[in-house]
Amino acid sequence: MVKKSDIKAGKDNAVSKLESMGNTLLTEIEKEQSPSFEAPLRGRSNVFHNEKTGCLYLGEKKEKRFFLNVAQAKKFMQTVAVASKCKKFKEENLHTSIRGLFYQLKFTLGDDIDEELFEEQSESNELVEDLEVSLAVKREELNLNTARKGVVAGPIRIKDKFAGDETIIDGTKQGRSGWMIPSDVDNGMELLDVDADYVLVVEKDAMWQRLNEDKFWKKENCILISPQGQASRGCRRLIRRLADLKLPIYCFADCDAWGWYIYWTIKTGSMNLAYLGESIATPEAKFLGVTMSDIDTYDFLSKLTIRAKEVDIKRAEEMLTYPWINKHPEWVNELKTVLEVKKKLEQDALQGPRLTFVADYVREKIEKKKFLP
Amino acid sequence: MVKKSDIKAGKDNAVSKLESMGNTLLTEIEKEQSPSFEAPLRGRSNVFHNEKTGCLYLGEKKEKRFFLNVAQAKKFMQTVAVASKCKKFKEENLHTSIRGLFYQLKFTLGDDIDEELFEEQSESNELVEDLEVSLAVKREELNLNTARKGVVAGPIRIKDKFAGDETIIDGTKQGRSGWMIPSDVDNGMELLDVDADYVLVVEKDAMWQRLNEDKFWKKENCILISPQGQASRGCRRLIRRLADLKLPIYCFADCDAWGWYIYWTIKTGSMNLAYLGESIATPEAKFLGVTMSDIDTYDFLSKLTIRAKEVDIKRAEEMLTYPWINKHPEWVNELKTVLEVKKKLEQDALQGPRLTFVADYVREKIEKKKFLP
Repeated sequence: MVKKSDIKAGKDNAVSKLESMGNTLLTEIEKEQSPSFEAPLRGRSNVFHNEKTGCLYLGEKKEKRFFLNVAQAKKFMQTVAVASKCKKFKEENLHTSIRGLFYQLKFTLGDDIDEELFEEQSESNELVEDLEVSLAVKREELNLNTARKGVVAGPIRIKDKFAGDETIIDGTKQGRSGWMIPSDVDNGMELLDVDADYVLVVEKDAMWQRLNEDKFWKKENCILISPQGQASRGCRRLIRRLADLKLPIYCFADCDAWGWYIYWTIKTGSMNLAYLGESIATPEAKFLGVTMSDIDTYDFLSKLTIRAKEVDIKRAEEMLTYPWINKHPEWVNELKTVLEVKKKLEQDALQGPRLTFVADYVREKIEKKKFLP
Repeated sequence: MVKKSDIKAGKDNAVSKLESMGNTLLTEIEKEQSPSFEAPLRGRSNVFHNEKTGCLYLGEKKEKRFFLNVAQAKKFMQTVAVASKCKKFKEENLHTSIRGLFYQLKFTLGDDIDEELFEEQSESNELVEDLEVSLAVKREELNLNTARKGVVAGPIRIKDKFAGDETIIDGTKQGRSGWMIPSDVDNGMELLDVDADYVLVVEKDAMWQRLNEDKFWKKENCILISPQGQASRGCRRLIRRLADLKLPIYCFADCDAWGWYIYWTIKTGSMNLAYLGESIATPEAKFLGVTMSDIDTYDFLSKLTIRAKEVDIKRAEEMLTYPWINKHPEWVNELKTVLEVKKKLEQDALQGPRLTFVADYVREKIEKKKFLP
């Protein structure tokens, strides 16, 4: 499991972990044992919510893979090949995507063997996750970039030590665009000054632009982030790092399947990345809105609801079965209202009366502390 | 049609055009005629390629909409409502998305009329395009943001006059991330210095990151752009503006349906946005690769081709029927090779032998001027 203490920015133990993995294999060979590789199972049956920390984790179930086993030999060789390539990338001090890794792996066996070790990229993806889990390193530390998405602006200064250069990113000087959140916000990235009162995470890029134009982050002295939909790993790590600085995290999303999912993924982590545990979750996050009860407060919203789709209904029902959600009466109430009235509500609807109403709404919610947990 | 001269950064004639539209309606009413609104048809049957300029345009076919026509009355009222809202946004000096516009339109008729002027956002989307075409303004000039995507780095300095502030964006100081290309790169956005030798447009964000890490833009003194897939309106406008500065534009994409589409959209404009004509097209652009003939030059690539999918085959066949493509023997040859060998090739494959090979490839292609037209 990756612990918070393992992933402090700058600390690089990936190479030593890769070497130790290789040494273990060598020892097994010297002892005339079958080389083996052990990794926790990542299926949903091995995902658990920890009541105390509020995060999703992997459980104890493990799988052991042996070289001298006909069914496992290929996968075993593949795992070692991926580890070997990552070690090379680390030594070269170069990064690539898992697609780039895949193309390098095509040359693993050399020209004289008429056999492909990897046919499809999906094979190598899975092995990257295996390595992350068993070595307790993040793929970003293995010099593998992940898809990046998300934008940030506000009173934050970041030192980006990248490719031998040093750049200071000033979150107050990003104009209409904001700074694009990179794949890796840990290694070689230092938060210099964060002189903000809180962090506002806005689901949709269009709403982020609306608030950015209103200089919301300046007026309210906050950090304005949009994951631009589902939050990337980099965005989730940035939110985690800001929460570590004791900044309150408020999430502003749609009242629908997708909005709830984005929020809960930021808060508890996701099933798929449960192996990253607390390093990618922010249990301190609060849900600012929009909510069904907003309709009672702001009359005009009753005209702007949308019929809930099947996916919204299904998701609401599913969420009501999760113990870490149904323990909150506020969420039970919210989801049951959706199931009853079969309506949903978008954050964009707050622009109905006037474009600048969005900022007033957020301000009022924060002042009155009207959040869902 | 929007002409290049109409869309110079800073020139704002949208309000006067909206007013003139309103005045025409008033005159018709005073003359006791049915108010009317004329817009060119935007269907494919009215899209033409202009051999001389190398761009796609709308033809002469038009549609006239009358208020006093039962079938057209609603659409007519909707058009006027959209125009009126956009005028309000201009006067407020505020921007929103077309989703924000949609929610404002929900209040057009007032509370005492039990009739919705707009049910679905798709209705208002279409009317925004109608307005763009008939008034020859871009939606960005109507203060409507479009979805933004794309990233830029390199020797470029941009003055962003946004929301009353002035920010200087320095394309050499964007670290690992690059500057996110905004929705609108014209209004209030000035290119201060662009001291580059050429522009390299890289289809995939992962490959952009690879080249950015190698400081390709620094070593080669070029502007490094990734549309991150299909190019947004903002990205296409930025490429057009850079081409206006006489910088050569080289596109580096996959050899497959999607890569070719991205290239030709940048070069000639797209069918959907044919009404924007030359303002969103860059006929000067060249296709740098990857190409099927690369396999003859770089042996290792033969091991890294992928089976072409049906969509690739279909697209290649379709492209061979376009006169503006099949007039180039180089493209005919390329597409016929794909149809013959039924293989495709990704730009990522260039990382096969070593990660830094990508930069060598691009450099060699540019030195030897090995482009497709």
